[in-house]
Amino acid sequence: MVVLAVDVGGTKLAVGLVDTDGELVLSERMPTPPGGDADALWKALAGLAESVAERAAGELIGIGIGVGGPMAWPEGVVSPLNMPGWRDFPLVARLSERFPGIPVRIHNDAVAFAVAEHWRGAGHGSDNMLGMVVSTGVGGGLILGGHLIDGGTGNAGHIGHIIVEPDGPACGCGGRGCLEAVARGPALANWAVTQGWEPGGAAVSDLPEPLYMEAAMASARQLAFDAAAGDPIALAAMRRAGRAIGLALASATHLCDLDLVTIGGGLSQAGKLIFDPLEESLRAHARMDFAQRVRVLPAALGQDAGLIGAAALILRSDHYWAG
Amino acid sequence: MVVLAVDVGGTKLAVGLVDTDGELVLSERMPTPPGGDADALWKALAGLAESVAERAAGELIGIGIGVGGPMAWPEGVVSPLNMPGWRDFPLVARLSERFPGIPVRIHNDAVAFAVAEHWRGAGHGSDNMLGMVVSTGVGGGLILGGHLIDGGTGNAGHIGHIIVEPDGPACGCGGRGCLEAVARGPALANWAVTQGWEPGGAAVSDLPEPLYMEAAMASARQLAFDAAAGDPIALAAMRRAGRAIGLALASATHLCDLDLVTIGGGLSQAGKLIFDPLEESLRAHARMDFAQRVRVLPAALGQDAGLIGAAALILRSDHYWAG
Repeated sequence: MVVLAVDVGGTKLAVGLVDTDGELVLSERMPTPPGGDADALWKALAGLAESVAERAAGELIGIGIGVGGPMAWPEGVVSPLNMPGWRDFPLVARLSERFPGIPVRIHNDAVAFAVAEHWRGAGHGSDNMLGMVVSTGVGGGLILGGHLIDGGTGNAGHIGHIIVEPDGPACGCGGRGCLEAVARGPALANWAVTQGWEPGGAAVSDLPEPLYMEAAMASARQLAFDAAAGDPIALAAMRRAGRAIGLALASATHLCDLDLVTIGGGLSQAGKLIFDPLEESLRAHARMDFAQRVRVLPAALGQDAGLIGAAALILRSDHYWAG
Repeated sequence: MVVLAVDVGGTKLAVGLVDTDGELVLSERMPTPPGGDADALWKALAGLAESVAERAAGELIGIGIGVGGPMAWPEGVVSPLNMPGWRDFPLVARLSERFPGIPVRIHNDAVAFAVAEHWRGAGHGSDNMLGMVVSTGVGGGLILGGHLIDGGTGNAGHIGHIIVEPDGPACGCGGRGCLEAVARGPALANWAVTQGWEPGGAAVSDLPEPLYMEAAMASARQLAFDAAAGDPIALAAMRRAGRAIGLALASATHLCDLDLVTIGGGLSQAGKLIFDPLEESLRAHARMDFAQRVRVLPAALGQDAGLIGAAALILRSDHYWAG
């Protein structure tokens, strides 16, 4: 028995087969058709899914999907921010038509990441954890009491919209001072530019989506390299991100009585340049006795996490599927 | 069948009988013996409990307790901040000895309040809510997916320690800028004094506990009266509290995807003087689409909430007891 796992992102599509032990037995990836309309995106994904499903040889018991928000959940009508071609696209219904007779389940890609880290990654053994992704955005998923927390509309886990600077920078959500507005890769790179840092590439703010996101993340990667090389502005940017993340995690730990936080995504690869100031700010603010036990670990699963977490919506529904 | 419900506070002890419909059929209250040592506090509570239990006429099926934190949970070894006579006091074990053969369950008093509001109060019908108390402290309890969230150590719901001003006032927890450090009654009154407000009573900071708390809350009540009468500093203090609560609720709503927040406790009685700035700040910051649905309501149950919530730990254990 295997699950068809689907990970839909703004820059790549991935489909794999995951067995009942949570092992990814095979996977295929392709670039997301840039600028694709709804139909082009669907054809690319459906083709990839069929090519992989053929190799399941009749063993397919369900489909699990991770995709960027927002979406109507659990129905799975999706409008991923970074895929303008899909607005109110009925992804679950389409896959159900294509693969009839088996359950098709969906969640936010950051939730799938958190589920994977809880099931088979750095969060294994913790019953109360936040899995977090810091990249072009800042997202996450909450597991409390050993179960995935959905919230009222499937949107629990939005750690990126905890407020860390009440009068801070405007956020894409319309608010102000959200963690995401401070610590997502493009925001950090933009902040560094205002401090005099030179990214050495195109002026990213002039580019259209999704090139903007690509270039902005390239800038953020450059920023991390420069920080590692000792550039003082780049180092300050990493401290700025780490401190903001630490503050948000102190709030989340107090509210949810967490044991553990795992952090993945591109920016987490800056390592101690981010984790050190993160720890410092977390420990300064997470001062209730119960909160001092919380641990922060790098994610363990790498790029397969999205597929493994999506599969868990089928394979470990007792823990991860209340929808 | 009835449950013996126990609500232990720094200024009063309350014990009641709650029937299976959640009706408080009788209750008795007495002042907490001021300055009492462990034994004096226990004798007072045990006497009250026995006097009430006698009237249960053999129908007693369990005991539920709400008490201020911190405590070792679910063991129920308690060290309430506002009851210095109890440090590591084995409250559950003592009540189990006194009333053998029935379950004895305990939770934080703010959690009991939230449970009551979910079961029979303003939160009835919501599956994803925060119940919050704003008084000498700021506490709360989380119900997500229709179930009480305990967190790893029974401490989930500590909304008072979400950070709302990263460089703000020192908090009793050792941190800085927590909601509680800004919005609890005594902190508000102290802030108003620094702005030139005259409380018209003793200089509360010179008084010993628990007189300090009594006097500080009297000052906070005076502050609310003065605000209602139009005193500009008192009004500014209410706005300060409302804004801070709104910020914390925006963070909590984004993280937990809440439908509803209920607010009780002394300060919530300031009504729109607090709720208006609260709404303004919440709506400015809770901008994700899913978060805009959250509603904030005054608590519905009044002073019986603590007893009803404590009883629910026994009577509705499928929703409120995982311990």
